[in-house]
Amino acid sequence: MDLLELVSSNKIFGGLQKVFSHQSTELTCKMNFSVYFPPQAEGGDVRLPVIFYLSGLTCSEQNFISKSGFQRYAAEHGIIVVGPDTSPRGVKIPGDDESWDFGVAAGFYLDATKDPWSKNYRMGSYVNKELYDLILSAFENVVDIDRIGIMGHSMGGHGALTSGLRNPGQYKSISAFAPICNPSACPWGVKAFTGYLGEDKSKWVEWDATELVKKYDGPLLTLLIDQGAADNFYIQKQLMPENLVEACRSVGMPVILNLREGYDHSYYYISTYIGEHFDFHAKILKA
Amino acid sequence: MDLLELVSSNKIFGGLQKVFSHQSTELTCKMNFSVYFPPQAEGGDVRLPVIFYLSGLTCSEQNFISKSGFQRYAAEHGIIVVGPDTSPRGVKIPGDDESWDFGVAAGFYLDATKDPWSKNYRMGSYVNKELYDLILSAFENVVDIDRIGIMGHSMGGHGALTSGLRNPGQYKSISAFAPICNPSACPWGVKAFTGYLGEDKSKWVEWDATELVKKYDGPLLTLLIDQGAADNFYIQKQLMPENLVEACRSVGMPVILNLREGYDHSYYYISTYIGEHFDFHAKILKA
Repeated sequence: MDLLELVSSNKIFGGLQKVFSHQSTELTCKMNFSVYFPPQAEGGDVRLPVIFYLSGLTCSEQNFISKSGFQRYAAEHGIIVVGPDTSPRGVKIPGDDESWDFGVAAGFYLDATKDPWSKNYRMGSYVNKELYDLILSAFENVVDIDRIGIMGHSMGGHGALTSGLRNPGQYKSISAFAPICNPSACPWGVKAFTGYLGEDKSKWVEWDATELVKKYDGPLLTLLIDQGAADNFYIQKQLMPENLVEACRSVGMPVILNLREGYDHSYYYISTYIGEHFDFHAKILKA
Repeated sequence: MDLLELVSSNKIFGGLQKVFSHQSTELTCKMNFSVYFPPQAEGGDVRLPVIFYLSGLTCSEQNFISKSGFQRYAAEHGIIVVGPDTSPRGVKIPGDDESWDFGVAAGFYLDATKDPWSKNYRMGSYVNKELYDLILSAFENVVDIDRIGIMGHSMGGHGALTSGLRNPGQYKSISAFAPICNPSACPWGVKAFTGYLGEDKSKWVEWDATELVKKYDGPLLTLLIDQGAADNFYIQKQLMPENLVEACRSVGMPVILNLREGYDHSYYYISTYIGEHFDFHAKILKA
């Protein structure tokens, strides 16, 4: 715990919504992340499931914890929830703040291989190795290592899917709100992958959920995908859940696609269905 | 409806969270306000109860609609919820942006009498006359004029209490989160009242809930007051709910004071108990 600095702590639904900062070795910068401890964590004599939540473009660790209302459901189910930031912060790479969909707050949860991004933009290893291990060690008295799930929104939905598919067995449950499902084939993804990974598209398949599904051979997973039908990014084909569903069907991976009439891409939409996602994760993690 | 401009509309919990703007005659500026229409409002063949929600210092109409999670409960109960902004905007009075607790976003829901504030800073009449009448006329097909309540937070809790007590019968149900209960006796209130109303304290009692309770003689009211015990502003005696409770007891007005162990002044706290407040209002408004 020496390496963690407490940024804030607020009581909500009987538990504590905390934000910590720490020095990341993967990203070589100081990073914030959030942890919600439900009331069941008090006392520390019981190990609880954990869900990682990955946020979307332009977000920090704050959006999800202040706007989604997830704490009510995490408290009901007794689940710890961890939320990282969306990119390295303060590393000052030329061009890192010129776009809202590339660079700062747009790390895409991958490990960049192209200069000048490859030194710091390693959100894939940060989330799935460094932060994951940090949570397990710093909170080992309350975390159940065998019951860990992951979810995310938009770019973070892509992150949740790729984190789960690239690391078989590490996450028992996976769900996503309006995820970027096939980044190799949409404008956001092409821009990010070209910038972070280079022009060679054979490298892109390692970070594309629709491609990763086709070669997944880990433990059985069921993917829960949620999508607002009035989401402009869905209509503009940035997200393409149908491509992911088609890939799942081609290899027999169970997938649920819930299309929500009239809902958009915002946290108003997420807050409406976050309870259903917690039910889904709890059913798997508490089985 | 011609006078209303739709700023945004987002589907949440089956209803629509809208923000409108309009030109206010009381404040002589353009103002935003929010309206949540629960799913029961669709079709417009049933008149629903309405709750006005008044926000606290530094807030706009956005904080409550994005952070409290109230829409879940409004949808469950079938209640329309209206949220005004917290002060005139863009009127550019010298000194209006020098403090976070006076001027912009700090209108205190009163009618200023002192220059240069008296022309624009008329939030009392704006909320209780202009906006109230606007809601009743613009949405007359879905609003039940006989079932209107009011609630608020901090400065807006003061606003809810004074609005209800100054206008007997206009609001059937009143509740407040961490309200400024006795502004004449706390630093925030003394600063605001001196600035907006002048030095003559005999004028202050007209806008002080603890004083207004003592001379209230309208229909029976029960005040629901919620207060986080770890709220720094409570500890620093900016809020003083005990003074309000004492005044209620002295005149026999029913009051409920719920002190919440460990909770602070934030929307994390409000989101935890907003459901209980909707239950309270629904019990009265739907009786």
